[in-house]
Amino acid sequence: MQYSLIQRILGLLLMAFSVTLIPPMFVSLWYGDDSLHAFTISFVVMLALGIISWLPVRHVKKELYLHDGFIITSLFWIVLSIVSAVPFLISPRLDIAQAVFEAVSGFTTTGATVILGLDYLPQSILYYRQQLQWIGGLGVIVFAVAVLPMLGIGGMQLYRAETPGPLHDDKITPRLQHTVWRFLLTYCIITLACTLAFWAGGMSLFDAVGHSYSTVSTGGFSTHDDSLKYFHSPLLEVIAIFFMLLGSLSFTLHYMSWVQMDLKRYWRDIQTRVFFYIVIVLTGIITITLWLKEIYPDFLTSLRYASFQLVSIMTTTGFLTDDFSQWPLFVPALIILSTFIGGCVGSTAGGFRVIRLIIIYKQAMRGLMRMIHPSAIFTIKLDGKSVPDSVLQTVWEFTLWFIASYVILSFLLMATGVEMVTAFSAVASCFNMAGPGLGKVVFIYTSISDTGLWILSFAMLLGRLEIFPLLVLMTPAFWRR
Amino acid sequence: MQYSLIQRILGLLLMAFSVTLIPPMFVSLWYGDDSLHAFTISFVVMLALGIISWLPVRHVKKELYLHDGFIITSLFWIVLSIVSAVPFLISPRLDIAQAVFEAVSGFTTTGATVILGLDYLPQSILYYRQQLQWIGGLGVIVFAVAVLPMLGIGGMQLYRAETPGPLHDDKITPRLQHTVWRFLLTYCIITLACTLAFWAGGMSLFDAVGHSYSTVSTGGFSTHDDSLKYFHSPLLEVIAIFFMLLGSLSFTLHYMSWVQMDLKRYWRDIQTRVFFYIVIVLTGIITITLWLKEIYPDFLTSLRYASFQLVSIMTTTGFLTDDFSQWPLFVPALIILSTFIGGCVGSTAGGFRVIRLIIIYKQAMRGLMRMIHPSAIFTIKLDGKSVPDSVLQTVWEFTLWFIASYVILSFLLMATGVEMVTAFSAVASCFNMAGPGLGKVVFIYTSISDTGLWILSFAMLLGRLEIFPLLVLMTPAFWRR
Ligand SMILES: [K+]
Ligand SMILES: [K+]
Repeated sequence: MQYSLIQRILGLLLMAFSVTLIPPMFVSLWYGDDSLHAFTISFVVMLALGIISWLPVRHVKKELYLHDGFIITSLFWIVLSIVSAVPFLISPRLDIAQAVFEAVSGFTTTGATVILGLDYLPQSILYYRQQLQWIGGLGVIVFAVAVLPMLGIGGMQLYRAETPGPLHDDKITPRLQHTVWRFLLTYCIITLACTLAFWAGGMSLFDAVGHSYSTVSTGGFSTHDDSLKYFHSPLLEVIAIFFMLLGSLSFTLHYMSWVQMDLKRYWRDIQTRVFFYIVIVLTGIITITLWLKEIYPDFLTSLRYASFQLVSIMTTTGFLTDDFSQWPLFVPALIILSTFIGGCVGSTAGGFRVIRLIIIYKQAMRGLMRMIHPSAIFTIKLDGKSVPDSVLQTVWEFTLWFIASYVILSFLLMATGVEMVTAFSAVASCFNMAGPGLGKVVFIYTSISDTGLWILSFAMLLGRLEIFPLLVLMTPAFWRR
Repeated sequence: MQYSLIQRILGLLLMAFSVTLIPPMFVSLWYGDDSLHAFTISFVVMLALGIISWLPVRHVKKELYLHDGFIITSLFWIVLSIVSAVPFLISPRLDIAQAVFEAVSGFTTTGATVILGLDYLPQSILYYRQQLQWIGGLGVIVFAVAVLPMLGIGGMQLYRAETPGPLHDDKITPRLQHTVWRFLLTYCIITLACTLAFWAGGMSLFDAVGHSYSTVSTGGFSTHDDSLKYFHSPLLEVIAIFFMLLGSLSFTLHYMSWVQMDLKRYWRDIQTRVFFYIVIVLTGIITITLWLKEIYPDFLTSLRYASFQLVSIMTTTGFLTDDFSQWPLFVPALIILSTFIGGCVGSTAGGFRVIRLIIIYKQAMRGLMRMIHPSAIFTIKLDGKSVPDSVLQTVWEFTLWFIASYVILSFLLMATGVEMVTAFSAVASCFNMAGPGLGKVVFIYTSISDTGLWILSFAMLLGRLEIFPLLVLMTPAFWRR
């Protein structure tokens, strides 16, 4: 491990990140609210931490190796999440567990909140929360496209070829910069389009900017306690659905399709296709159930609420237009289950990801076929290309740790006194970065104790990091080598 | 598919099975209860069905092939379960869904019941229920040792070598008979020992016989509504724990250890070792929780209830000495989770089975190690022997179908209007053949609708058949070949 190099990178990251506190300062000045000091103090703290970290090792020039990748990715999410909590300590005066929960929830684009009374919060704080999700979302895309494939986590090797030019297995090349700029551009354009659409659809400019930040990043924070229910606007809901879906597709695909002016690329991509199939089938099932059970007056209203809620939760955005935990039969459980699918690889969405679901589905079907034809040989193909066994194995190993993490974290949360339905749904929602759960955590997480919030913060980070970087760091063998 | 041969075997099975109705007739005569006709009618029906099936094809002499194995195993459990329901239609006058549920639950050794007022039922019916479990238990052992390894389901190939002599891949040899007799003997001896122990421990002879049947088969039916709580006897609980544990160890191991007078064999077997580790750790966690939360007056009483309940549910027996669904924090969920482990392969217990858990645990650890040492090669070993990749793959495929079945069945049950906790726990308990669930299905399943009972009956059969035989039969590709 090259600690001095890691320290240098961390310092640079902190300094760069401190810049993100400047926009909320302007918002505070513009609206003349009383939270300017929260951001000034935080800015100074972050910048100072960055300089202290960077200064002694500023001349270190080494190549990064694979193993440093685990540490840097983990530190990126953990350290930046934690420093992001500083403003929340000052202005809404949350306690430490709550402030960290809120910051981690924002930065990992989970969108679970412990702040009640959003409508009465200073605009700068509201803006800061929304912007935090947007920056987190950008982090996810870069992380998913540039870092995960190199670390070889859970089938992500498949996406190595799509990044521009060859990436070496054990060195992070400077080409990363190119990738980052391209995605930043794509991300900004979609966000801008979303802002304009929300604004034209009837939101105030402030709400439009804020909600576009948390829609495109599939974050789900809102500037109102009632989330999107506040607006009572089918038009805004349709716009949100559209941009939540965009946010949970691969940004590589967005970029490629647009640059080549070839929208059919979307349809040719198996992950995108299956994602839409699942969205349509689940929306259909939920709509029909709500309609038959007469929860809403007619079929169209059922479709309106069902489609919005399913898309919002399955894309792991987490906006609400109604309390879906009160919907009948299996519907609440199905909606929470959909967070385990999540979005596509290369998007801002969380969850298990569609491509992994496709791979394990194909493995299951192969198992069945082998029972019927024991001597036949079956290869698993994706879009015509056969998937190597090594990739199948890493997906399988990822799945095991995914399930184990989910179960263990749920039990830990129950140990703090949270009842079963709330615990299992809260962990599902945080671990998959959706936001809302069932039981006592539909709109807000204030009922959870501080210990519970720490567990959930850990769940969000573990989910966002795709488990392995954090897990590897907790393994003694990693430090012994 | 050789339908005439299958028909002949089915006829023989039915005729043989009709003999099991004779003991309850004697019980009815002995106690002079009013249910003799239930068994006489059922005996005639079963024998007649058997003869009708067998007579036209009695001269068919062919070799059995692998594919017929799927059909015969499925028919064995389905047909015999269903004909076993006939007495329940006549004497406690259950409706069809309930009678089939009770019979499937008995024969698959699940032990979930829809009969309230067991204490007032005729002795012959009570005896019949208990005996049904005992015969089912014997069926499981034979099935697990002689049939599953040949079908190659979920890692069971590992156990092929342990059966006596070579078994060909595509022909079921007559050596099966030898195996069956040996296991029958072992099974009878353990049952007899259990009967004597219960009797000496204070049960009536009738209760002792009945409970030994459902203990050794890890079935869990009782002759009292209150299950083992009825006796309020720590001594009987200890005896039950001992024989439940015996019932969930491999009967091959029992036979081998005793014949060779080598009790260390148990400890040398990794599956048995890990099984006991898990039992001890979980009992410890539950005892301490019950003690700290002051559910019982002292530590020893906490240990008494915790150990009995954990062993009872984890071995998928399902006796109750208290309403564990009311225990605090994560304890009810943990106890239900333990049914997903279940017992050892080659036992009467259900669940995922310890050996599979060991294999997927080792796969998960290998995945983690490969992250840390990407170029190293790790082989997975069991008791010093390396496990081939093909076996690892079938275990993985089994795991996928196991999880998918569990989730889908739970959602189907919720669709009938059962709430979440009851639905997930009922399906877990039936699918893993434990018996008691949480919510509304702790002691009895009367709150479930007929549709729900059909779903749960299917869950029990699917679990007992280790998923694949039934799944294969539902695959069009199987019938096309
Ligand atoms: K979210
Ligand atoms: K049972």
